[in-house]
Amino acid sequence: MASSKGFLSLSSLSQGVIKAEYAVRGTMAIRAKKIKEELQQGKKFPFTEITECNVGNPQVFGQVPLTFNRQVISGLMNPELLSSNIYHKDVKKRVEYYLNKMGCGMGAYSDSAGHRVIKENVTKFLEKRDGHSSHPDNIFLTDGVTLGLHMVLQALVSGPNDGFMIPVPQYPLYTAILAMQNAHAVPYYLNEDKGWRIDMHKLQETYERHAKKGINVKAICIINPGNPTGQVLSESEIQQIVDFAYKNKLTILADEVYQQNVYKDGVSFVSVKKVVAANKSKPVDLFSFNSASKGILGECGLRGGYFETYNLRDEVFEQIQKLRTMYVCSNTTGQIIIDLMVNPPNRSENSLEVVDQYEREKQELLTSLKNRAHIVTQYLKKMKNVTCNEIEGAMYAFPRLHLSQKAIDEAHARNMKPDLFYTMEGILIVCFTF
Amino acid sequence: MASSKGFLSLSSLSQGVIKAEYAVRGTMAIRAKKIKEELQQGKKFPFTEITECNVGNPQVFGQVPLTFNRQVISGLMNPELLSSNIYHKDVKKRVEYYLNKMGCGMGAYSDSAGHRVIKENVTKFLEKRDGHSSHPDNIFLTDGVTLGLHMVLQALVSGPNDGFMIPVPQYPLYTAILAMQNAHAVPYYLNEDKGWRIDMHKLQETYERHAKKGINVKAICIINPGNPTGQVLSESEIQQIVDFAYKNKLTILADEVYQQNVYKDGVSFVSVKKVVAANKSKPVDLFSFNSASKGILGECGLRGGYFETYNLRDEVFEQIQKLRTMYVCSNTTGQIIIDLMVNPPNRSENSLEVVDQYEREKQELLTSLKNRAHIVTQYLKKMKNVTCNEIEGAMYAFPRLHLSQKAIDEAHARNMKPDLFYTMEGILIVCFTF
Repeated sequence: MASSKGFLSLSSLSQGVIKAEYAVRGTMAIRAKKIKEELQQGKKFPFTEITECNVGNPQVFGQVPLTFNRQVISGLMNPELLSSNIYHKDVKKRVEYYLNKMGCGMGAYSDSAGHRVIKENVTKFLEKRDGHSSHPDNIFLTDGVTLGLHMVLQALVSGPNDGFMIPVPQYPLYTAILAMQNAHAVPYYLNEDKGWRIDMHKLQETYERHAKKGINVKAICIINPGNPTGQVLSESEIQQIVDFAYKNKLTILADEVYQQNVYKDGVSFVSVKKVVAANKSKPVDLFSFNSASKGILGECGLRGGYFETYNLRDEVFEQIQKLRTMYVCSNTTGQIIIDLMVNPPNRSENSLEVVDQYEREKQELLTSLKNRAHIVTQYLKKMKNVTCNEIEGAMYAFPRLHLSQKAIDEAHARNMKPDLFYTMEGILIVCFTF
Repeated sequence: MASSKGFLSLSSLSQGVIKAEYAVRGTMAIRAKKIKEELQQGKKFPFTEITECNVGNPQVFGQVPLTFNRQVISGLMNPELLSSNIYHKDVKKRVEYYLNKMGCGMGAYSDSAGHRVIKENVTKFLEKRDGHSSHPDNIFLTDGVTLGLHMVLQALVSGPNDGFMIPVPQYPLYTAILAMQNAHAVPYYLNEDKGWRIDMHKLQETYERHAKKGINVKAICIINPGNPTGQVLSESEIQQIVDFAYKNKLTILADEVYQQNVYKDGVSFVSVKKVVAANKSKPVDLFSFNSASKGILGECGLRGGYFETYNLRDEVFEQIQKLRTMYVCSNTTGQIIIDLMVNPPNRSENSLEVVDQYEREKQELLTSLKNRAHIVTQYLKKMKNVTCNEIEGAMYAFPRLHLSQKAIDEAHARNMKPDLFYTMEGILIVCFTF
């Protein structure tokens, strides 16, 4: 066969990979890229620029990183800076603390699951947050939460009938990874009319309906605060999820990357770990994920993430540990930014001016995010044929478009889902980042 | 059932993950860790410290990162440094070049496959190295080569009969990933008596033997320079491998992370890409991997890597591209260190003193690595009952231990492989890093 290309074809490839769809980089993102190019070529649109909100990427829109964090990382990258007088002594002290505790610089591999000192500091953060004990061995640092999710789902899928309950609307990475691993996504629907709450009584019904079809439902994924729906679960809602998981022998995957992003007065973040740990008689297997990409840091590019395991049997834990070694360690900058997140400057160890600057920058960011959450919701509510729930947390508004019958008919005539048809016309991106 | 642990058991987990063994972090590494702890507790051994050479981790043993590289990264992490006079103007210029070309700082996500400017610079480096054209779209930046290998093997395994030819001795990540993906590792043995060369005539025989058993052999992995065996393939050897791959419709995975580590006079590195590109009539599918962790940079902790695809059909390429998006972008520090590797200071753009310092540091490192390769081999050769081939490249010596019959019998009595028995006694680690 004469061909200028190789032998590999679609049939040579993993059918799971082929099946996977990762929508945040899919059809709409490609359409946006095309419009961007056309704008640059001078084509006229009712707008002059495109703001890409398909991923939460705060620093690309001007969010400024926290000064202390970046000074410390720059000092770690070039410790010669410590001999100049350019940085405050607290920055130098922090850089020396890491170099000393790590026993090496940034260019060395750490242990696969991360530098011990950072895992210990994550532990202290979790203990303070939840009031329950945590252990450094149960902390696994990863290049962002994405890689942690890949690893954990890879470990948990044992056959083609395995099912994982995921919220809908969801962050599309879940369905993509599950398709790739040849597992089933079992959707549980969030109730828009009730502010995207989980319909607890429907969880059991959903479970049973899929179990009856022969699906081995083995885990439930919780995204709290919700992505892209912005609701924040209460402690009693989490308790109901834990009860449900225990009753049906499900593992819980808790995606808590927006735990710092809570805006509504009177609402606060409660971790799944806190509730599971309080339920000693219901030892549910738990993987909790957290990230330096969201919150007030927004350090997406540094790829800092971690997960904590809880209640795993030893033989299961050892497999997770082994799997983690097969990916070698996560990048050291990402490890350090996780430490800086869980171990910020504080009054007992640092000078007043350093703590003050840090707190001021942090407050400004939180206030700005809260204001933008409010502004976006208000604007959406004012729009004709658009409704939107109030944003309690995370970084997204998730409006409902009330399309005319004409638009719906046109979409069907083009063999498209109505919402995709609407967004592809370039008028509005459904999922707003603020 | 009363239990303080969760429901997950080994039978809940991926059997591929359970099967996988990653030896560099396995039995021997655990034994070393235990001895280290015992040393700290005061237990007496015939030695006083342990040097961990189970992974190539130069900076943990005092290799110093190149000054220019770390100054640039620190400037990117904290651009306020540019307004001081602490850095040479070339460093500032380079920092501004990246900020300008990336259109954002280090804390933003880049495109999934990496910042365009870096992919373009990798392309220029490859074109200069090989004398053949390359395209930025074909460059995929990854968090180290490890993640690239995971992705590519994940894409290429389509069923449980798939086989991948791997060199033996090998870098154990290959067998670990293949086991995890439920694919077969098809070993081709390197000939120790001939300086670890590939027995070309045996490749075809190995292929046919496995094909006859029903294994769908679909790719051959080449590690050049060899890890852990240190041999460097000649152009004619690579040509034979390309001929073999084309004849049998195999994809080539070329692990070329040690391409800068060549020590033997008269020997130089030739890339698989160069040979494949020169064979227009034999368009073999190719994935080539390179890293900032080895070479003269040794920046393992920064997790910078990339792979280049070549000769892929469009529909196959698109799947690789999609899979890459499912892992989000690699960390930006790792991306920048790749750029600094392929795009070092040079006389046409930089001041003489900056280029001179860079070249001096580079030469010192290369000379030191070359000397250590020689010293390690000489010492091994002097040892009783140890033989060792000369090291042409990479970072390892791979000696042969000639064990006494008594030791072999004792190993068998303990139901252990003789080499494992020997190393577990704590006398010598088989694979030396120098």
